[in-house]
Amino acid sequence: MTAAVTFAPRPDEHSVETGTVLSPKFDADGLVTAVAVDADRGDVLMVAHMNAEALARTIETGDAWFWSRSRRQLWRKGEESGNTLRVADLRVDCDQDAILVKVRVGGDGVTCHTGHRSCFYRSIPTGRAPSPALALVFDKAMPKK
Amino acid sequence: MTAAVTFAPRPDEHSVETGTVLSPKFDADGLVTAVAVDADRGDVLMVAHMNAEALARTIETGDAWFWSRSRRQLWRKGEESGNTLRVADLRVDCDQDAILVKVRVGGDGVTCHTGHRSCFYRSIPTGRAPSPALALVFDKAMPKK
Repeated sequence: MTAAVTFAPRPDEHSVETGTVLSPKFDADGLVTAVAVDADRGDVLMVAHMNAEALARTIETGDAWFWSRSRRQLWRKGEESGNTLRVADLRVDCDQDAILVKVRVGGDGVTCHTGHRSCFYRSIPTGRAPSPALALVFDKAMPKK
Repeated sequence: MTAAVTFAPRPDEHSVETGTVLSPKFDADGLVTAVAVDADRGDVLMVAHMNAEALARTIETGDAWFWSRSRRQLWRKGEESGNTLRVADLRVDCDQDAILVKVRVGGDGVTCHTGHRSCFYRSIPTGRAPSPALALVFDKAMPKK
């Protein structure tokens, strides 16, 4: 496994956007945002973060690795639960500060620690200004296991 | 339009995850991550950020508003290009620090400023450790307009 990870230094903006060199823009905490999507169903499953090492391990192993900000450690998703995220397609965005991970979920298919298939199991009603009366709506097609 | 925006204060973690109260967890910069997805095709279009005002305007108007970190200003996506993002479904994740915006794209359907339909027009090859030989692969199904 990669001990010290170096991605290419950031070239000019045009090259970052139009070229084939991977040169991620890590933020002040050394992180990029990573969005995991179900490769077959298309559902957005979770939003997490990767540092350089997590991104390198994801690239090398084809399993999704993240950096846990709360636990301050590298984290192979599903390591304990069995709900691993096997990478079907890994993508980077235009300015290379966000990663898209299209995955197949292992185990019982649950990605969220709450037991839902996806972390996005509640909708926010729109059409009027937010107020104390605003109530999130649970997606009944995404029951808790 | 909402001048000063207040969302509910953060209750305990269990309530945040299982309740119907919207109480977003804005980071030290006052932002949450927002992922825009094509409501019909399922493609992830872009990753951006919302502050409280952008989230409130999105909820109230049903158009996607973001906070531009580079320009340090509120930004109604498509205001200049015509490629507005009309919200079909707005969601919040388990711990309420990420927003999912399922949208229908206005104008000519281009979301990325580079002219691609989505910002994620390049794949990262997996299966071996990152090296200078790694070359991003352009998605030919996502040509530049």
